[in-house]
Amino acid sequence: MNRPIRILGIDPGLRRTGWGIVDSEGNALSFIACGSVETSDKEEIARRLNAIHTGLRAVVARYLPEEAAVEETFVNADARGALKLGQARGIALLVPAQSGLVVAEYAPNLVKKSVVGAGRAEKAQVRVMVSVLLPKADPQSEDACDALAIAITHAHHRSSPLLRIAAGGG
Amino acid sequence: MNRPIRILGIDPGLRRTGWGIVDSEGNALSFIACGSVETSDKEEIARRLNAIHTGLRAVVARYLPEEAAVEETFVNADARGALKLGQARGIALLVPAQSGLVVAEYAPNLVKKSVVGAGRAEKAQVRVMVSVLLPKADPQSEDACDALAIAITHAHHRSSPLLRIAAGGG
Repeated sequence: MNRPIRILGIDPGLRRTGWGIVDSEGNALSFIACGSVETSDKEEIARRLNAIHTGLRAVVARYLPEEAAVEETFVNADARGALKLGQARGIALLVPAQSGLVVAEYAPNLVKKSVVGAGRAEKAQVRVMVSVLLPKADPQSEDACDALAIAITHAHHRSSPLLRIAAGGG
Repeated sequence: MNRPIRILGIDPGLRRTGWGIVDSEGNALSFIACGSVETSDKEEIARRLNAIHTGLRAVVARYLPEEAAVEETFVNADARGALKLGQARGIALLVPAQSGLVVAEYAPNLVKKSVVGAGRAEKAQVRVMVSVLLPKADPQSEDACDALAIAITHAHHRSSPLLRIAAGGG
């Protein structure tokens, strides 16, 4: 007998970390909530990371997700940018792990492929498909929408939640 | 009137995060404790970050530092490595911030300059000088020793703890 599984998707970023909560039961998906944690670049980095941590902890405490998924950060040539993003990503991975959740990771093109059907889909197509798959969702930011897309991806792939899926290309 | 200030130095790394506690009073430094939090690369990244978080939280709870300093990670050309290191560094910055501590950041060459007197000093020279400046210290790992060097650097520079010092060169 199936019972719904509650999934937390996170799209990490220092300026804005998106989160989305989706219930998955068999092939059915239900939107529960989404949002984003924003920090100001006028603040010290340690304080910004603390704000992301506090915000995501509150999401976990409120919605009690059972599984989590984080987007694999796109690593471009800029090592300094990657380091900065890595810091925010560390918090996104930490929070579900603190609550004992397994954290799956999905490459951006796998997220696009799962939601739109094509790994090279445009951001706008992802947004449209999220609103089709989760008609009650009303993401107020791109990051919240991306976080829902990650949660949807995990719902599709969670039969092997421990598998770190590294889809090629970009 | 001076009173000692307790400083936590952290040298972040996914495999091994070094930490060191030093009391600073005027020009005098006292060694309090040091160690490292180690994680296995056989574990999932989120669990490793959680282990670093738990380990550093325990250090803060036990020694109650009042100020913290983290080494600015050396960013080389490898963006993927920078992302990984950034994740560990995010935890190193988060833990003191969670306790309301200001977190200073120092570039590796400034640490060398503060401890040895030369920005291009060898690792071995740093180790020797840490044992001269803190004769009671017995770091069991390079990372613990580096963490003490960062705490010493902060003791020298803490008149401007909010200043993010970005020394040039390498």
